[in-house]
Formats: sequence, structure tokens, C-alpha cells
Amino acid sequence: MHIAIIVTHRDITTFIQTLHEHLPNERISIYPNIEDPESVDIVIAWKYPNGYLQSFKNLKLICSFGAGVDHIFADPFLPSDPIITRIVDSGLTISMTRFILMCVLNTQYCIFQLRENQERKSWQPNLSTQHEPNIGIMGFGVLGQYAAMTLHQLGYTVNAWCRTEKHDIPFDVYAQNELSEFLKKTNILVCLLPLTDNTRGILNRELFDQLPAGSTLIQVGRGFHLKDEDLIEALQSNQLSSAWLDVFQVEPLPHNSRLWSTPGVFITPHIASITNQRSAAIQISKNILRLKKGEPILYKVDKTAGY
Amino acid sequence: MHIAIIVTHRDITTFIQTLHEHLPNERISIYPNIEDPESVDIVIAWKYPNGYLQSFKNLKLICSFGAGVDHIFADPFLPSDPIITRIVDSGLTISMTRFILMCVLNTQYCIFQLRENQERKSWQPNLSTQHEPNIGIMGFGVLGQYAAMTLHQLGYTVNAWCRTEKHDIPFDVYAQNELSEFLKKTNILVCLLPLTDNTRGILNRELFDQLPAGSTLIQVGRGFHLKDEDLIEALQSNQLSSAWLDVFQVEPLPHNSRLWSTPGVFITPHIASITNQRSAAIQISKNILRLKKGEPILYKVDKTAGY
Repeated sequence: MHIAIIVTHRDITTFIQTLHEHLPNERISIYPNIEDPESVDIVIAWKYPNGYLQSFKNLKLICSFGAGVDHIFADPFLPSDPIITRIVDSGLTISMTRFILMCVLNTQYCIFQLRENQERKSWQPNLSTQHEPNIGIMGFGVLGQYAAMTLHQLGYTVNAWCRTEKHDIPFDVYAQNELSEFLKKTNILVCLLPLTDNTRGILNRELFDQLPAGSTLIQVGRGFHLKDEDLIEALQSNQLSSAWLDVFQVEPLPHNSRLWSTPGVFITPHIASITNQRSAAIQISKNILRLKKGEPILYKVDKTAGY
Repeated sequence: MHIAIIVTHRDITTFIQTLHEHLPNERISIYPNIEDPESVDIVIAWKYPNGYLQSFKNLKLICSFGAGVDHIFADPFLPSDPIITRIVDSGLTISMTRFILMCVLNTQYCIFQLRENQERKSWQPNLSTQHEPNIGIMGFGVLGQYAAMTLHQLGYTVNAWCRTEKHDIPFDVYAQNELSEFLKKTNILVCLLPLTDNTRGILNRELFDQLPAGSTLIQVGRGFHLKDEDLIEALQSNQLSSAWLDVFQVEPLPHNSRLWSTPGVFITPHIASITNQRSAAIQISKNILRLKKGEPILYKVDKTAGY
């Protein structure tokens, strides 16, 4: 098998090393030094140049280097035949859940207000935990389900909004056409959606206006889910009280973005969930061996749904 | 039965109302208006004046209004006959676990540093989550076990230090005489101990020096576990990097306490776990009905151990 790694803007030394360990007998080429593109069977990709795969005539498998695949579907010249897979990693799932928990707890306990009270030597026990939040999870895949279950176990009221029907879930799951009902019941909204044509710009003023006044947004999906100006307006009008933003349309977030200094916005530098290079390499190696043996490929993306 | 409520420094309207609802036929007296003390069968107590119970000659049961009973054992004139109980409440357990989680996550993600980076418009993804903490729980009762299990499920390495032997626990539990080994493996130390003669002042310089340099303390036990000056020294020498303090020897924390402004100290106003008045009243009512029917009393305190 000939495997080509096309991962840009990242140091992937550990990934390449681990892949060599697990696939010692395979040919592995690394972008931009990929010869004989027509001999490549498998591409491991992260933000590759659009159209770059057009010369890869015999591609069977495209493995996203992360949980998201929107960077692959963004290529208008994406070949239609290869199977596309994504990373599903328990480390990634746990780190996402921890990050969401941090945002929920800091919202509930008013962490920055507590800090200000300390600076003023002011003892105000009634500040925090007066209101038990209702947490709404948009996007109910592997990450969303784990986060929701953890929050549920911690006694929170959790609702989910989900494209596909789900069963055996110990809380309310709203269907695609029940978004308004879902939003009405939510005062901490967590965006964990995949980025597709249906979800681009979904976090907009119309959506914010359906939440109870004073709600909080935790945005850990993709930058293009959010209309930045709509968020700023919603915060300025107090329709939203705060927003935790970990992902942005352009990263690093440009110096001139108004988000940096909008009151109520908490910026984190895309740290909620980062691919663990070792476990990603192991997962992809195993899938490559499955392909070689003709066994079913795991973690396949649904091309119609776009994730 | 004659029940006397002696709870000071708290508005307990909801508690009294709920108790009346659940024990409509019992005589309930409220401090300081307690007549015929020799006719009182049951006292519900929180920080009552030392010696006050000496005239209660026929007392059968003393119910602490909270999870702690150190305020009862602090009375040198405590009558020896009555059974003593404490509140064990799932709401209280969950809120303690949430609070500890908030402290752990904010330590791991360097929350206040993230905030400063935002103020400087500085994008530094490598700041947080570089090091996976080892969390050590001192005190492994109902609260400690629930917190430890939750942290364990979130992928953290957890150790516990415990007076009594524990089985079927999916992580290391260190015995009474293994404190040093336990401390060596810990870099976030959570104090959930009961306050007894053995644990008073246990959070001192000698203990801090056995932790790896740069460790963090989460103090949600009792104020008198901690030697304040030893903590300040440990922070100033960088033996500790931070401390989350929710309980204090005197509350509200006096204006002149150096803790307010010691770098690395985060003060919260005793909010980690507050007795839910409704569920406490229901739990105590049920125990009172058990006493009346001669059934075994629940949530008994071990008088020899002091908790």
C-alpha cells in the first residue's frame, strides 16, 4: 500500500513515527514530497490544498487527521469514490467533555465575579449556584452524547437536539424540526455540531432570540457555525449574558476581531479537543490493515450528511 | 415527641416549614424559645452555645443540620447518651463534586491565565492541559468517594487516603500510615476530611513539603484543617502554586486576613456544599419517625471516630 500524509500547519512528528511503527512494511510519503500520486491508495489529510487530490487516480481511502471532515468536503474537486473516515478517540471525547464542564461550572459559579469579589475582599455566598441551568446540546454524536451523559450524571437537566432519532437516552432528545422547543428549554447552549451546508451560520440572531433572555453559549463546534456580529449584538442587548468561544472562522483569532474585547465573551485558543497524535496514528493504522484484509472500515463518514 | 431546633446564624424558614409538613403531630420548639428542656427528645443542631444541652435531661437524638458534626463535638458538655446523626444528601454530594471539578478544571486549564491572555489579545494554545494532574483525595467518605469516582470517569488519575480499608475501588487507596506515599503521588490535593483531633491543622508546612513542588490545594474540608500561615509560606516559596479555599477558621473571612490577597489563593465564600433545607428536613423527619417506631436510626455518627 502507498500512504500519503497531507497535513498542513501542524508538527506531526509523533504521528508519523507512530504510523511507521504500526505499518513498518508500507510506503509512506509526506507532503509536499509525494511521488507517483496515481499509486497512492490512502491519503491522511488535514487542510490540504483544494484540488490537490485530482492526480490521485486510485485513491481508496481518505482519513481525516481530526474529528472534523469539513476541511475535506470544502474541496470542490474532492474525488467521489474513496471512503472517508474521521478520528473517533476516547481521549478526544474526554477532553471535550472536560472543557464543556469547565465552561458550564464557571458559568454557574460566576467564576470571574467570584474573582472580582475576592479582589474587593467581599464575601457574597449568595452569588453563585442560585439557578440550576438547563443545558442544551446541539449535535449529539460521540462527543455530544458523552458530554450530555456526564452532565446528566452530575445532576444537570440536559436536553439534546439531534438530526437522527436516538433511543435509550435518559433525557429529552428533540428532533430536527423541534429546534424552537429545544431552544426555549435551554439556558446554556452547547454547539457540538458538524459543519455542513445545513449548520453553517446556525448560531445567529434568530436562534439566540429563541433562547430565554440571559442565556449562555458554549461554542466548541466550528468557527463558521457562528455569525460573530450576531453574537456581539445578542450580548450587547443582554439577550445572551455570556459566550465561551473556543473556535473561530480564522485562527489564531485576528487582533482586530471585536470578539476579543466584547464584554461577556470568553476566548480560549482552540484547546477544547486536540487530536492525540499517537492514538490517531494507531486508529488510522488499524483501519488501513482492515482495508488491506478486506474487512469493514471503521469511523466512516456519511457523505450525504457531510459528517 | 418534643423536637427542639437550635440552629444559629442561618435563616431556616424553609427547613422549619418542611419539618412541620412532615411531622404535623409533633411539638416543635425553636431556639431561643425552648420551654421544658427536660421534655425534649430530639435536638436539631447547628453551632449551638456550648453547654446549652445540659438541661436537656431526656435527649435521645441529636441531628446535625449539616454534613459536619465537629460543631457538636466541640461542646465539652455534650451529653454522652444521645445518638448523633448527620445529613447525607445526594444534592450535597453532587454540589461538592461539581465544586471540586470546577477547581480541578480551572487549575488544569489555567483559567485566570487564559483570561489575562484574552485581555492582551494573545493566542497561546500550548498554555493549558500540558500536564495531566494526579488528584489526591484526603477523606474518603460519601462526598470523597463520589468526587473521586467522577474524576476517575473523566480520565483523571485519582488516589485516595483513607482511615478505614476500602475494597472494589478502581484506583489506589492509601492507608492511614501511608500519607507520605500518597502525597508524593499527588499534585492536586483535595481536603474533604472531617474535623477531628487527628485532622486539626493537618494542612501544614510539613504536609505541603511532601507534595511535588508546584502542587495545588483544594480545601473544602473545615477551616481548622488548614494552618493559614503555613499555606501562605508554601505559596510564597512556590512549593504550592495555587490554593482554592472555600472554608475558613472564621467566616465570613475577616477583612484583615492575608489570605484575601496572597498570590495563588482563590477565595470562595463557603459555597462548595450547602445543606438543602427541604431535603434535610425530609431526611431528619424520616429518622425521627424511625426513632418513634423503634426502627434503626440512619446516618449515625461514630462517636469514637468523631464523625
